[in-house]
Amino acid sequence: MIRSALMFSSVAWTLAIGAAEPQTSGHPLTMADVLAASTAQDWRVIDPENTLYMELESGRVIIELAPGFAPQLVANIKALVRAGFFNGLAIMRSQDNYVVQWGDAESRRPLGQAKAQVTAEFARSAQGLNFTALPDPDVYAPQTGFVDGFPAARDAASGQAWLTHCYGMVGAGRDDAPDSGNGTELYTVIGNAPRHLDRNVVLVGRIVQGVELLSVMPRGKEAMGFYGEEEARAPIRSVRVAADVPEAQRTVLEALRTDTATFKALVESRRNRREKWFVNPAGHIEVCNVPLPVRAAATGR
Amino acid sequence: MIRSALMFSSVAWTLAIGAAEPQTSGHPLTMADVLAASTAQDWRVIDPENTLYMELESGRVIIELAPGFAPQLVANIKALVRAGFFNGLAIMRSQDNYVVQWGDAESRRPLGQAKAQVTAEFARSAQGLNFTALPDPDVYAPQTGFVDGFPAARDAASGQAWLTHCYGMVGAGRDDAPDSGNGTELYTVIGNAPRHLDRNVVLVGRIVQGVELLSVMPRGKEAMGFYGEEEARAPIRSVRVAADVPEAQRTVLEALRTDTATFKALVESRRNRREKWFVNPAGHIEVCNVPLPVRAAATGR
Repeated sequence: MIRSALMFSSVAWTLAIGAAEPQTSGHPLTMADVLAASTAQDWRVIDPENTLYMELESGRVIIELAPGFAPQLVANIKALVRAGFFNGLAIMRSQDNYVVQWGDAESRRPLGQAKAQVTAEFARSAQGLNFTALPDPDVYAPQTGFVDGFPAARDAASGQAWLTHCYGMVGAGRDDAPDSGNGTELYTVIGNAPRHLDRNVVLVGRIVQGVELLSVMPRGKEAMGFYGEEEARAPIRSVRVAADVPEAQRTVLEALRTDTATFKALVESRRNRREKWFVNPAGHIEVCNVPLPVRAAATGR
Repeated sequence: MIRSALMFSSVAWTLAIGAAEPQTSGHPLTMADVLAASTAQDWRVIDPENTLYMELESGRVIIELAPGFAPQLVANIKALVRAGFFNGLAIMRSQDNYVVQWGDAESRRPLGQAKAQVTAEFARSAQGLNFTALPDPDVYAPQTGFVDGFPAARDAASGQAWLTHCYGMVGAGRDDAPDSGNGTELYTVIGNAPRHLDRNVVLVGRIVQGVELLSVMPRGKEAMGFYGEEEARAPIRSVRVAADVPEAQRTVLEALRTDTATFKALVESRRNRREKWFVNPAGHIEVCNVPLPVRAAATGR
C-alpha cells in the first residue's frame, strides 16, 4: 500500500505541475494502482435523495439522478416514483446494441402530481459547472469530460453543456414532441454509445449498480426491440427514492469524484494502458470509455 | 418505390459531384429511403468459404471472416473448425459492456493441423485496400472507414491499416505473448467499442447475424466475467465453415457493399438523422455507429 501511495503521489504531482520526476522513476500506473492509492477524499457518497432503486426479480438496479442537468424532469420522475407510478410495470423493450426501456408503454396510468409535459432539458448553460475536461478530442462535441460523476460535453461557442449517451446512462423516452418526455418511460443504453441521441432526448442520470440485470434482457421480437403480446416481460416490483427506503434496506454507494487529481490519474491510466498485456497503448480515450468507479460505502473507511 | 429511387438518385448525384440541386428539392434521405432505393449491385453475397456458423441452443450465430486483414489467423481458425475443434465447447465468459468469449478455456484440446502460435496480425499495409473513408475524425486513429464491409482505420504516416473494435467484431483472445492468439478462444464485443484493444489483439471478422444470442448471456460472476465452476455455460453444438454445410441448411446472406454511392448516402443519412423525431442532427458519426446492413439473399432479387 505504501508503495502504491508513493507511486500515486508521484503521478499526481506530475499531472499538477509537469514532469518533475522522470517517468522511469517508477512504472506508470494502472487503474488498479490509482484506485489502491485513492483516499477517502477522492470519493463521495451518492445522495439518497437523488438515487432510485428499481427492484426486479433478478435484483436491484440503482440509478443516480442528475438534477444539475435536468432539474424539472428529475423532479417529475421523483414525483412519479413517490406516487408508486412504476410499481408493477415492466420492461417493455430490449433492442440489441441500443437500449432497454421500461415504464408505462401504453400511457394508461394516472400521473398524479406529475406533469404530462416537461420542457425538454436537452442542454444547460455551461457556466458554473465543475467540468473536468478530457485531453482528447471527440467525434460528436467540441469538448467532452465529466461533471459531478457524469459524462458530459460542452460547446464554448454556444455556452451550452449536456450529458452524453454512454453505456448505462438513463434517459426519458419521448414521442415526436420534445416536451413529451415526462419520465413515464425510461431507457438505458446497453450498446455502443448512441451519441447521435445527445440533445435529442433528455438524459436524467446513470445506472451506478445493476446495469447487467437490464443488458441481458432477451431482445424483443417486435420493431425496435419492443416485446410482443406473447413475449414475457420482466416485471418491475417497485421503484423507490433511496431516501424513502429504511436505512437497513439501502445500498449505500460511493462514487469516485471526477474533479480530483486521482480521477485525472485514472483517465491517464486508461488513455495509455500499462498492464503488461498491452502492446500498443492507445494514447487517447473517448468519453464513454472512461470507467466511473463506484463501491460500497464502508464505515470507518 | 419510384419516389424513393428518385430521391436516392438525387443524393447520390450530390455526393458524387457536389450540390447540383438545392437540398430543398426533396426531403433529405433516411436510411430506410437509402436501402429502399438500393439496387442488386449495391449488395454482395457473403462468401461461404469465409463464413462460420456457430450453433447454440438458442440459434445460429454467423461470422464473416476477414482474411484480408488476418490471413494466417483466419486460416488457423478454419483449420480448427474443420477439425471439429469447437464442437461441444461452451461460452466461458460474459463481461458486461465488454465481451462474450468462447472456445477452449483450459487449452486441453489437441490442435490437429492448426498452429499453437500465430504471428500477431495487428495491422497490415494500407496499400491496395478498397478503403471508404468517413468524413469525420476519430478519437483513436488518424482516419477510419470501411474495407469490404468491415470497420477499419488507417494511418498515412505508418502506411498501416487495421480493423476496429466495434460491437459484434470477433477477435482471438490471447495471453501476454502476442503470438499466443491462435484462434482457440474467440470473443465478440457486446458493449461500447473498446477501441483501446485495436492493434493489441487480432480481429478476425464480425458477426453478421445472431450477435443478440451472445450479448444476452448472463454475466459471469468471476473476475472479468468468466463463469465459475457452478455457473451454467451455454454449450456450442458445433462450429462449421458455411461452405461445408449442405446448401439446404445454409443461411445465405447479402451484405451492403461499402464502396458504393449507396453506402455513402447511408453514412450521410446517419450523420444527420432526418427522421422527424430528431431535433438536433449530430452532423458527425463515429465508425462504430455506422450500420452495416445484412439481409437474407433471395433468388431473383
